[in-house]
Amino acid sequence: MKIGILGGGQLGRMLALSAYPLGLSPVIYEATPGTCAADVAPVVIGSFDDGKALADFAKSVDVVTFDWENVPVDSVKPLSAWVRVAPPATALAQSQDRWHEKTLFRKLGIPTPDFAKVDTRADLDQAIARIGLPGILKTRRLGYDGKGQAVMRTAKDVERGYAQLQGQPLIYEQMIAFEREVSLICVRGRRGEIVDYPLAENVHEQGVLAVSCAPYIKPALHSEAAAHVHRLLGRLKYVGVLAVEFFVHKGHLIANEMAPRVHNSGHWTLEGAVTSQFENHIRAVAGLPLGRTDVTGHSVMVNFIGRMPDRKKLLSVDGLHLHDYGKSARTGRKLGHATAVFATPARRNQARAALLALRRNDQ
Amino acid sequence: MKIGILGGGQLGRMLALSAYPLGLSPVIYEATPGTCAADVAPVVIGSFDDGKALADFAKSVDVVTFDWENVPVDSVKPLSAWVRVAPPATALAQSQDRWHEKTLFRKLGIPTPDFAKVDTRADLDQAIARIGLPGILKTRRLGYDGKGQAVMRTAKDVERGYAQLQGQPLIYEQMIAFEREVSLICVRGRRGEIVDYPLAENVHEQGVLAVSCAPYIKPALHSEAAAHVHRLLGRLKYVGVLAVEFFVHKGHLIANEMAPRVHNSGHWTLEGAVTSQFENHIRAVAGLPLGRTDVTGHSVMVNFIGRMPDRKKLLSVDGLHLHDYGKSARTGRKLGHATAVFATPARRNQARAALLALRRNDQ
Repeated sequence: MKIGILGGGQLGRMLALSAYPLGLSPVIYEATPGTCAADVAPVVIGSFDDGKALADFAKSVDVVTFDWENVPVDSVKPLSAWVRVAPPATALAQSQDRWHEKTLFRKLGIPTPDFAKVDTRADLDQAIARIGLPGILKTRRLGYDGKGQAVMRTAKDVERGYAQLQGQPLIYEQMIAFEREVSLICVRGRRGEIVDYPLAENVHEQGVLAVSCAPYIKPALHSEAAAHVHRLLGRLKYVGVLAVEFFVHKGHLIANEMAPRVHNSGHWTLEGAVTSQFENHIRAVAGLPLGRTDVTGHSVMVNFIGRMPDRKKLLSVDGLHLHDYGKSARTGRKLGHATAVFATPARRNQARAALLALRRNDQ
Repeated sequence: MKIGILGGGQLGRMLALSAYPLGLSPVIYEATPGTCAADVAPVVIGSFDDGKALADFAKSVDVVTFDWENVPVDSVKPLSAWVRVAPPATALAQSQDRWHEKTLFRKLGIPTPDFAKVDTRADLDQAIARIGLPGILKTRRLGYDGKGQAVMRTAKDVERGYAQLQGQPLIYEQMIAFEREVSLICVRGRRGEIVDYPLAENVHEQGVLAVSCAPYIKPALHSEAAAHVHRLLGRLKYVGVLAVEFFVHKGHLIANEMAPRVHNSGHWTLEGAVTSQFENHIRAVAGLPLGRTDVTGHSVMVNFIGRMPDRKKLLSVDGLHLHDYGKSARTGRKLGHATAVFATPARRNQARAALLALRRNDQ
């Protein structure tokens, strides 16, 4: 069975590496030659706007899935004439636009920061009058890892931020003074069966995920998150991995955003859970039974951004698992991550400190 | 760093899949196009007797290693002029010939079944007179998975067996009425550091490994095995994974054979140990620090031979990890294996029974 993956970054690479042991054949569709998934799987090069090339690709595989949620929805929709597409194009469409996404959350009773659509300067003033400062002005589309965002605390921030982002559809969001950030990775199979991983606790640096630890053990919060995400999965008739990031605020969850794909905050599952998010995504889209999501211990995942620490130093760290994406170094680029799994949270936290020190010194 | 692998079967495939997350680039050298490692790594096609092609391959990589121990030693020896070769050609040479192998074991004080070199019918008669029946007549070279062997219990077996195997260098070995078969997987790094996995208990069917369970918890036997294998590693100035199979007989170990490569009886380490034998072999030959070999629980590994059970049925088994080699079905061919890891030996044994039933019904 051929698994077509639109997008050939590190997520596509790790999806491909998970497909082989299942006896499945991954094939990547990518606009840019030489991306890191090309090291591990055959690649078809084509534009994501080229309907003919995408249709040819779709006809050559048994299912189409994604390593990148910003594939143009108009390019994806026609593909289901040829082949099963999972997750569905509607899920992509919802997640590509922050305003649609938050509107969907609200419809399903999932708490979100207060928000308002901003097309003009007058819209922004009204939004600030209603929601207040501080807030965040964001592009509705194509923002990720803190890009396309302006934090607004003062009138000066408002001027500067609007000048920077105007001219495209925007959204103004209430800024939440959250206690923690957590995420839930859920998987829904073709027959509607759902498994989910325990919550991970995430720390971002300059808008980019730096560290995840799992499980984040708050059973009540897990149930709250799972109830929210299961509603989303059902509404979207979803198949595959869906990740939702939440703020923990006054002991409850506020949804920040969703990603209709495997997610950086689920990378700990590679060694920290019985079945990784990558394998479970492949199982789901291929129509295979889902694998167990129990943890194998207390995990830490640390991202390497811009520069990889020395490989020998990393592999000297007791119990460390390296996931190098095989990319060349570039400022701000995610180049790899490491995970480690321990019997107790205390030992995990020691390892986290050691890994963060290694990351600081070497980056 | 490019890791050149001579041989492109399932071991090469799993070595390649382990190299990518370390940020290393595997390249396969293989005589036959379309072997299963070709799905996951670039392949150079060439004969194992073609010194020029092998030298060109060696010059194009940073280290040469093996998925197959029967690469002609005369082809391997010149390669070290161009590149590091690990394990060393001398280890290949010793393991390619059962008489040299057992003679080395004896020199190092490692108990073996009694044995004698057989070049003529008179040699065989003398060997039987000294060692007795039952015994096994084996080809000294190129035997594996029970091929090239004749069990001799009666005078008639002796006639038939000799007629079948004569005309090539042979060895006659005492047949051990063993209680169990176990194996030790050891890894030696470039600086001489050694890690070893706990013993696995193996069950063969018709000369082919069917099931391994690990850890086989007999601390005294582990120490005995480790002492033997560490002597071998030192003598051979070995780098990489070395597997040695032992019979357990009257509470002690008798060495059966060694394999200078990752080994089927170590496949349980993929999920059953912190670092798999494949990753540790790659770490060793690449000169990287070795990874932890502690177990993650009680593992079972079941081989699928000749035919793969239905994929959906397999993946419905709770906690099962599938490793499908992507080969076409053929009688007697190893097509894949499954592993599962449990908190207790009792649960592991239940799962083993369920897996064996599935294997019987579906094969």
